[in-house]
Amino acid sequence: MTNRFQPVYNIAELCARRRLNNVVICPGSRSAPLVLAFTRHPEMKCRLISDERSAAFIALGISQNCKLPTVLICTSGTAAYNFAPAVAEAFFSQTPLLVLTADRPKEWVAQQDGQTIFQNNLYGHNVKQSFEIPQDYDHGDGQWMINRTLNEAISLSSAEPAGPVHINMPFREPLYPAAEVVTGYDDNVRVIEDHPAYPVLTEYQKTKIFEQWPSFKHVAIVAGQHDMSESRIQAMTNLLEQHKLPVVADILSNLHGIDSIVSHADLFMDVCSSEIKESLRPDLLITFGNSIISKSLKQFLRTHPPNRHWHIQPFGPVADTYQSITDVYRVNINTFLNYISSLPSRNNFDGQKQENYNKLWEIEERRALRVLNNFFSQQEFAEFEFVKEFMNALPPFCNLHVANSMSVRYANYIGLSATQKDVSVYANRGTSGIDGCTSTAVGHALVSHKPNFLITGDVAFFYDRNAFWHNYKLTNLRVVVLNNHGGIIFKLIDGPGALPEAEDFFVTEQKLSAKRLCEEFNFEYLKLDSKRKLRNTLPDFIEPGEKTKILEIESSSELNKNIFNELKLKIKKSYEL
Amino acid sequence: MTNRFQPVYNIAELCARRRLNNVVICPGSRSAPLVLAFTRHPEMKCRLISDERSAAFIALGISQNCKLPTVLICTSGTAAYNFAPAVAEAFFSQTPLLVLTADRPKEWVAQQDGQTIFQNNLYGHNVKQSFEIPQDYDHGDGQWMINRTLNEAISLSSAEPAGPVHINMPFREPLYPAAEVVTGYDDNVRVIEDHPAYPVLTEYQKTKIFEQWPSFKHVAIVAGQHDMSESRIQAMTNLLEQHKLPVVADILSNLHGIDSIVSHADLFMDVCSSEIKESLRPDLLITFGNSIISKSLKQFLRTHPPNRHWHIQPFGPVADTYQSITDVYRVNINTFLNYISSLPSRNNFDGQKQENYNKLWEIEERRALRVLNNFFSQQEFAEFEFVKEFMNALPPFCNLHVANSMSVRYANYIGLSATQKDVSVYANRGTSGIDGCTSTAVGHALVSHKPNFLITGDVAFFYDRNAFWHNYKLTNLRVVVLNNHGGIIFKLIDGPGALPEAEDFFVTEQKLSAKRLCEEFNFEYLKLDSKRKLRNTLPDFIEPGEKTKILEIESSSELNKNIFNELKLKIKKSYEL
Repeated sequence: MTNRFQPVYNIAELCARRRLNNVVICPGSRSAPLVLAFTRHPEMKCRLISDERSAAFIALGISQNCKLPTVLICTSGTAAYNFAPAVAEAFFSQTPLLVLTADRPKEWVAQQDGQTIFQNNLYGHNVKQSFEIPQDYDHGDGQWMINRTLNEAISLSSAEPAGPVHINMPFREPLYPAAEVVTGYDDNVRVIEDHPAYPVLTEYQKTKIFEQWPSFKHVAIVAGQHDMSESRIQAMTNLLEQHKLPVVADILSNLHGIDSIVSHADLFMDVCSSEIKESLRPDLLITFGNSIISKSLKQFLRTHPPNRHWHIQPFGPVADTYQSITDVYRVNINTFLNYISSLPSRNNFDGQKQENYNKLWEIEERRALRVLNNFFSQQEFAEFEFVKEFMNALPPFCNLHVANSMSVRYANYIGLSATQKDVSVYANRGTSGIDGCTSTAVGHALVSHKPNFLITGDVAFFYDRNAFWHNYKLTNLRVVVLNNHGGIIFKLIDGPGALPEAEDFFVTEQKLSAKRLCEEFNFEYLKLDSKRKLRNTLPDFIEPGEKTKILEIESSSELNKNIFNELKLKIKKSYEL
Repeated sequence: MTNRFQPVYNIAELCARRRLNNVVICPGSRSAPLVLAFTRHPEMKCRLISDERSAAFIALGISQNCKLPTVLICTSGTAAYNFAPAVAEAFFSQTPLLVLTADRPKEWVAQQDGQTIFQNNLYGHNVKQSFEIPQDYDHGDGQWMINRTLNEAISLSSAEPAGPVHINMPFREPLYPAAEVVTGYDDNVRVIEDHPAYPVLTEYQKTKIFEQWPSFKHVAIVAGQHDMSESRIQAMTNLLEQHKLPVVADILSNLHGIDSIVSHADLFMDVCSSEIKESLRPDLLITFGNSIISKSLKQFLRTHPPNRHWHIQPFGPVADTYQSITDVYRVNINTFLNYISSLPSRNNFDGQKQENYNKLWEIEERRALRVLNNFFSQQEFAEFEFVKEFMNALPPFCNLHVANSMSVRYANYIGLSATQKDVSVYANRGTSGIDGCTSTAVGHALVSHKPNFLITGDVAFFYDRNAFWHNYKLTNLRVVVLNNHGGIIFKLIDGPGALPEAEDFFVTEQKLSAKRLCEEFNFEYLKLDSKRKLRNTLPDFIEPGEKTKILEIESSSELNKNIFNELKLKIKKSYEL
């Protein structure tokens, strides 16, 4: 007996041939043809996750780690909507994802059948593209469409800027093969390899850059979020050997392997004087990568616009984050950096001006760093200092995940040093939600051979606790929970802190601690409540073991707020000396 | 100093005047103008819930209970997407909901600003309507639009068929009022009362029904899901006094107050013979209400279509669930039932035929009930029997919530008796998802003076555990967790049970028990593992107390599967006697 859903089995075969081997499956019945096609395929690594919201973020983490689309499968109905937060994060963080949602046959939508909603184009503009497969899997044209659509979807998901692609697949009953049906995979499944464009600078573009370059005396680079890349670091290092210019790069740029980058702009940018700000204004700003963390740095660039702003991005729509773009170069970023490196350095007066400009940034960076390094010795022990000690103690090879919103800020204030060049930093900054930070780290841990460390606040942690609700061991995952029993960030940002409603309707006091969660999932629980214990607890926490470890720091939001504000004050005061 | 966001404060005032007093707020900063406008209003009852997915289902539960739209507020970004599962459920279950999502100013979408996605029309076709407010709150035209849009949205959300309405509201900074700003509410806010249509039968329609009615000899009514309604029960009772006809009504129709209804069709419909099925075929089918639970009843009606099918639904698109509709009457349902009651009963041969037809249904109902009532005494104790004992022990006035998917089926197999007429039954059957069943019950408990009982499986329960993650006491909530450590339904439905993949990729084994959750939230935990303990445990569980109580039944999915299959077999055998 032939298999009605042979074209669906061929999807699994096609995915295998295109190296998409990681599959996250959410339980359901309508999706049975997909589930069987993928779980029966010998090259597929399938993982079952019950909470679709967590499942989708776990798939996102796997994609980030493997740099390939993860296949994400769910049943019909609201299941597909639970994927939406992660799909949006994947879209804005440019993470590949192949979302296959099972659907009822189209005839049955809005006919009071269970688990049936309007699923076509479910993710609106927050997905690269949404396809729908015709439901007649036995028609030759339908089979042709499924093959080319899947080929297209896989290519599109991986193509720069990568992102999620959605395929809605209606299935008619019977969904399960009869006993006599032998299922298998078609050896002749067509693979359409889409060989991506590799854009370089034209001679005309090179000449233009060559001619303009000498006219700038205050060139600065601002690097956005980017995965760790040896070649990027090499290209940047070469460039900095040739030209003295400030590279402003927060922790998510993963450029901390370069010693001279300006990584503490978020600490000084909103406290330094308007004279200093004016002196830091670039005449040429060069940007690439995704978003940056610091609001004050964005504000500085918007209020101190450069004369020219070159944005380097090979493909896709461009975000004009600093409201100053004048040129977009559609070229591979390293190719561009290498070309700039090849331009002659200037040993004249203009070259001196550029060097002075670079020094101005260096001075501010060092000032902030000096205050920061002297700061904690005087302070009562709390979250901020712990994050510093913890980041210093990280093993040389690992992934560091930082949750939204306070954790990523703490980590960015602290920064990593050039000796930690093999620490890769990840955060969900496409949409900056708190909804899937833990699940994303779990996705990494599932496929990574490195240790994975997550720093998270209590609200993000408990919001996404179903990240752990599955049957996979995560021996290489370590989670730091900064538990101040609420959303401390609402005390720190301007605005809500002063309002009478702050405590009740912004900070969101919550009472849970991570201890019971650890008992529930058989994790190792460590608790730290004094600086004294740090020396023993931190190595215990970091060292490898058979269990997931959770280290909880409980400290009052009031104390943490005061420490944070005092640091800001100290940096401000450093300008008065 | 004037308040820039006065029109937003006026939204709160308008909501108050239109009796929308229940507000569910999710924490965030972009939503500050909305949060302040609603929390400062003296007539608003605001509740803060951190997990937006749970928050939206809690709002849905409040709406169901109060029969008015609940105001649901979140910040920008993926927060709004976490509302989507509940918005879809509200849409398909026709539950009013006013969803106010804060947004960044439109200029900043896709510009790498945090928490910014494409929010307009976020819920696609799964919402009644989506509005977007212009962001210039200081322009007279904008203020006019906000007022009329909110008036329209409130009317639309409540208008039959009720449903969710979404308003996306972009806000520019500063979001928080300066200290010198005195906020208040405009006494002259315009209220546009939309007085709903009340459709009755025209004389022509009455004449047509009057003329056709005597030609039918096998009239049956199938009632879909409907909230408990005294007047509906009265209208049905009057009708049944006048005409002998079967009313097939599952537990969600809330017609159990009527003694003679056929409520166990789901038990016999897929095991009775084709001769019996043929004898049960109606010549006139009358339907109203939302979806029904039983797949076998749907199949029966589709394969045994009536000659005429009158569907009664005053407004909105009609679902042709049984593929047989011939007439849609756009009239208030009770008005229609009352008119049928006024038609003369037939004391002739045709009247006898109708009475015989009614008896055929009665016989099947009684047979199923007899097998059911004799069944459990012989069985090992497990979920099914517990549900029976529990439902029999419910206090006379209460709400019974049943989760998807196995719990609602168990409850429907058992049914409620006519003496339990004041037990209102609720289930999320708009989309039949497992994602918010607990949260919906929590929403009811927050606003209801009655005891609220929820029966749920372990997968639905742990999926939605953030239903409890807030600071509100739920003394009137009692939850039964049928913990078989997986999705038992996948063992029971045809198809997956026989597959080698059943255990690993459909049943979704999960290891949690509810005990630690109870410790975490300071709930009272009761456990039942034998029939012997039932007599003490059940009264303890049901009686009022200061704490939320959770009663967990742990039993193996294999045992439950066997018991369930044996019942089916016994009913089948009852036809052989």
